[in-house]
Amino acid sequence: MSKLDFWYEFASMYSYLAAMRVEKVAQEAGVAIRWRPFLLGPIFKAQGWNTSPFNLYPAKGSYMLLDLARQCEDMGLPNFTMPKPFPANSLLAARVALVLSDTERPDFSRAVYLAEFAEGKDIGSRDTIAEILKKLGHDAETALTKAGDQAIKDRLRANTEEAMKISIFGAPTFVTDEDDLFWGNDRLEQALAWAKRA
Amino acid sequence: MSKLDFWYEFASMYSYLAAMRVEKVAQEAGVAIRWRPFLLGPIFKAQGWNTSPFNLYPAKGSYMLLDLARQCEDMGLPNFTMPKPFPANSLLAARVALVLSDTERPDFSRAVYLAEFAEGKDIGSRDTIAEILKKLGHDAETALTKAGDQAIKDRLRANTEEAMKISIFGAPTFVTDEDDLFWGNDRLEQALAWAKRA
Repeated sequence: MSKLDFWYEFASMYSYLAAMRVEKVAQEAGVAIRWRPFLLGPIFKAQGWNTSPFNLYPAKGSYMLLDLARQCEDMGLPNFTMPKPFPANSLLAARVALVLSDTERPDFSRAVYLAEFAEGKDIGSRDTIAEILKKLGHDAETALTKAGDQAIKDRLRANTEEAMKISIFGAPTFVTDEDDLFWGNDRLEQALAWAKRA
Repeated sequence: MSKLDFWYEFASMYSYLAAMRVEKVAQEAGVAIRWRPFLLGPIFKAQGWNTSPFNLYPAKGSYMLLDLARQCEDMGLPNFTMPKPFPANSLLAARVALVLSDTERPDFSRAVYLAEFAEGKDIGSRDTIAEILKKLGHDAETALTKAGDQAIKDRLRANTEEAMKISIFGAPTFVTDEDDLFWGNDRLEQALAWAKRA
């Protein structure tokens, strides 16, 4: 079966859109998705940014909110809500995502995104993540403790370093087994077509 | 008939993609397109950029070339070619576009884009623009002389000021009669649907 890496950042609004639809369109295309959380912070820093480009460029930032509202409506998602703070501190969510198994990660990731961009919750808060874990039937305390393990920290750092090495500069990004890179929710269909061809 | 403003910049690669397909998809949607050339330079400067973001962010810039190559292939356009210099000086082309009538402007604009991004020509050169004008059956010398008239300079400046006033921050941008703004070639279909609804 063809595979596609789905690189996502929990603070990223367009990663949210991709996360909510990637499994359905991938299934239709007959492609397996590998969910790969990483951190954009170090990558943005290397580009000379110290916050989200949505904050750096106000005209673009306000437009993006309109665009996200329209995309959410078209996709049948709840009204788009800007979380406070924005961008969220996504470190804990990303680490917990790596504590969970490959089969548990998608549900957890979608739940984090909905808490953040549909309910406006602070996903940097331990309480928010604990609540999500509990709702999904996980042992929240165990998962949160494991998220602090050096092995998990190292895995997330390795993911982010790999992302930087393969020239990922934003999220979401889709990468085929042949290292073809596609940036943005709008390129998901094309990425799937290339993954199938590969 | 519903209308949609198509704001484009001659140095912009994604404006090129939009220019090559906008009439066909607009006709299918039953929407009339108003071709509105403007300059991104003053807008980028206001955002603190002194060149194209493709030059400012190398990882993003190299990706965009891959993306453009793939998009051109999918659209059946000639191989994407990076012009020298990039970004081109688009001032002359934009002024000449405003010398021409509303019905002449689309053909001229597409010819400029093909010279630039399919043949890699310098559209900042008077010779390139003269050649394009001649091929389209225009009196090149007259058009180029008129392009230097104060009235034409003022019209282009007014276009750019209007773009800035309605918060345009990039190109291509589509704007409905109800001032709904859509950025990027990827949003053309959505913009047409909104223009129809308006």
